[in-house]
Amino acid sequence: MQFKYQESSLLEQDLINKTASNLENYVETLHKVVEADNYNADESSINLPADENLFEEVMKLRNEKATSELKYIIDIGIGGSNLGTKAIYDALFGFFDLLEPDRFPKIIFADTTNPETLEKINTLLNTQLRSSDEVLINIISKSGGTSETISNAEIILKSLKEKFPDIHSRVVATTDEGSNLWHKADELNFAKLALPKTVGGRFSVFSAVGLFPLACCGIDIQKLRAGALRARQQSLALEVSENPALLSASVLYLQSQNGKNVNDNFFFNQELESVGKWYRQLMGESIGKEKDLKNKVVHTGITPTVSVGSTDLHSMAQLYIGGPKDKVTTFVYARTEAEAVNPDEMILSGLVEGIAGKSARQIMNAILEGTKKAYTNVEHPFMEVVLDEVTEYTIGEFLQFKMIEMMYLGKLFNVNTFDQPNVEDYKKETKKILNG
Amino acid sequence: MQFKYQESSLLEQDLINKTASNLENYVETLHKVVEADNYNADESSINLPADENLFEEVMKLRNEKATSELKYIIDIGIGGSNLGTKAIYDALFGFFDLLEPDRFPKIIFADTTNPETLEKINTLLNTQLRSSDEVLINIISKSGGTSETISNAEIILKSLKEKFPDIHSRVVATTDEGSNLWHKADELNFAKLALPKTVGGRFSVFSAVGLFPLACCGIDIQKLRAGALRARQQSLALEVSENPALLSASVLYLQSQNGKNVNDNFFFNQELESVGKWYRQLMGESIGKEKDLKNKVVHTGITPTVSVGSTDLHSMAQLYIGGPKDKVTTFVYARTEAEAVNPDEMILSGLVEGIAGKSARQIMNAILEGTKKAYTNVEHPFMEVVLDEVTEYTIGEFLQFKMIEMMYLGKLFNVNTFDQPNVEDYKKETKKILNG
Repeated sequence: MQFKYQESSLLEQDLINKTASNLENYVETLHKVVEADNYNADESSINLPADENLFEEVMKLRNEKATSELKYIIDIGIGGSNLGTKAIYDALFGFFDLLEPDRFPKIIFADTTNPETLEKINTLLNTQLRSSDEVLINIISKSGGTSETISNAEIILKSLKEKFPDIHSRVVATTDEGSNLWHKADELNFAKLALPKTVGGRFSVFSAVGLFPLACCGIDIQKLRAGALRARQQSLALEVSENPALLSASVLYLQSQNGKNVNDNFFFNQELESVGKWYRQLMGESIGKEKDLKNKVVHTGITPTVSVGSTDLHSMAQLYIGGPKDKVTTFVYARTEAEAVNPDEMILSGLVEGIAGKSARQIMNAILEGTKKAYTNVEHPFMEVVLDEVTEYTIGEFLQFKMIEMMYLGKLFNVNTFDQPNVEDYKKETKKILNG
Repeated sequence: MQFKYQESSLLEQDLINKTASNLENYVETLHKVVEADNYNADESSINLPADENLFEEVMKLRNEKATSELKYIIDIGIGGSNLGTKAIYDALFGFFDLLEPDRFPKIIFADTTNPETLEKINTLLNTQLRSSDEVLINIISKSGGTSETISNAEIILKSLKEKFPDIHSRVVATTDEGSNLWHKADELNFAKLALPKTVGGRFSVFSAVGLFPLACCGIDIQKLRAGALRARQQSLALEVSENPALLSASVLYLQSQNGKNVNDNFFFNQELESVGKWYRQLMGESIGKEKDLKNKVVHTGITPTVSVGSTDLHSMAQLYIGGPKDKVTTFVYARTEAEAVNPDEMILSGLVEGIAGKSARQIMNAILEGTKKAYTNVEHPFMEVVLDEVTEYTIGEFLQFKMIEMMYLGKLFNVNTFDQPNVEDYKKETKKILNG
């Protein structure tokens, strides 16, 4: 992974360094969390990719449940309980699932309670499955009491049970140890996986929440963890210039102080869109805060947006280049092995200059370079994250880099990166209505 | 369609009325465009749903090309050439395509030049098709010279031609009459559909651009047009209180003057996410402008975002409720026939209070109502668009309502709603690189 920001961030290097150096003590804190190698601290999600017990537990259950017949993993969770899994699955398989109808196992995500979706999932399972070995139901709720998750699980289980009376043996519950769901799983003979209490949903992708379903669909979670560990090492570097997470957080913070309060994450590999949606949660919940650590009302936060290149150049470029100067962009792109190429003698010759003999990737690269030039010309600040291909390793790297970046950014904003108190505001009101 | 904004917009009704009444003359202008019933004016896209010749031409070609064997329509276009089609297709079919592997024909969208996607499309077509009647290639480029579109079409055609030498008879080009692609289509014996010169991509959904592929996959385009005509009638009402497009534009404009420069479009039916992505382009390109009509540098614009309920309450609610006061929200939701229901005696009993015996839609509605209450409590302004179910008619209504809203909004900002001059900034740079 390469991180680029100089010049293009439109900030003085001295100012970035000064901002970053305010976090020297916090970098030391993160080092201590790594040394402790446990789950006591708020930041302890950074220990997940090094947790061998976790890896062995996940692989043991995977070997038990992910038989060669497995066709569908129904991943029932919402927010932090599915966004990380979906980010990785979509990058490697999911974005192409419609184009590969015969590739299995596929993960089907059931997050919100969309009646239409639920009915169609039930029909799919009823018509396509011949034995219960072909399906795995993964229920993920940290608290064990998420309305959407429990309702979805109920509606799907009820339907499947009519067809497969043994369906309970095909259910895995992932939740905090001791939650109500944990006990219910015991009662109903579901398999269980625990996640550490201190690890919140948006930092849970390298816990059993992500590792188990990903391992079940054939993703190499060892490589994922290796990439994450590599990024952890880089993102804990004491030397600012060698620490991409600290640099990126500093740029985001400084530019937000300049009134650039929208962070557009612009992916030039379209299969990474769900990685962007995972990052929306990470930034939205970590930094969007009513109060700071001194309990002062601050209404802080940066609005994260996701764009996909070159698609959104045809929908948002006019706004990004001509519109308000309120954005800082993070371009993310990867090399690819795939080589779809235009022939020298094109069937559709003469319509576009300069593309004959060029590969799809070369055209995409030219568009990306053209966009960077245009942004530079209008002084739209940006950073770049360059991945070596899209693989388990590089996605692991990217997600871990971004989670540590967010811990730094929370410190710079002087907010609690790990809570989400205002989410209760709508949940409280919803509960009143459901029980009323 | 119902439109609600009073109280929740947090604006004085007098102020809204005063703002809206500034556009009295422009409403008259739109009436004249309808009376003229031609394609001379910038606004003439509003005449598309009433164009019987267009309808007949589209249906004639559809009857010729969409045989009962048709499995895949490859829709090759980007930005305005595919976002409207995708919005409607995804709402009615596409969002569920993975859950309905045996439902055909399916539309596959090829927008950007993603090498991985192109290789997988080619493999899909090579492995799944037995005759050329099973595929239709729809190339859409207003100018006829869009790099991504022409390159994608070339790479897919080249591959298909090896398998089906008669593939040219299965290609339809949709472009401006007289464009280079228009002439190339004649040369290569492709079928052709024209779109009116004055109709830009983001206003083209009810032209052949959208109607043809949608009709080919079994969508009732008559109902779509009927819904659009109904919305046109409402959105041209001279009485402000009866004109939802004018009211919505006024609220968006006034709240942006209050520093609320992000418009979150929050859909509580997840199959409408692509409708949100279509709206991003509509707003981004229409209002995001460097200069106003007097050529003064203004850097105007509102940043449109798309959220999906209840999914994004678990990713963005903390920011939306606790974060900066820079957003105005448009909630969009529809009733649904589907009735996935929790039994009174739940397998997963005792985990969530209040959901036993409740349907998925009731739970979703409670969450939506809870969210509206929470927004009201923190003075986060919002509007609501309520659709009767998700059907051709209601989606047609919604898209037409939003296109006319945008014409009003452009007038309020005093910008040219119909151009996109800054898009040339990156295209120019890209061209240099491709030809250099």
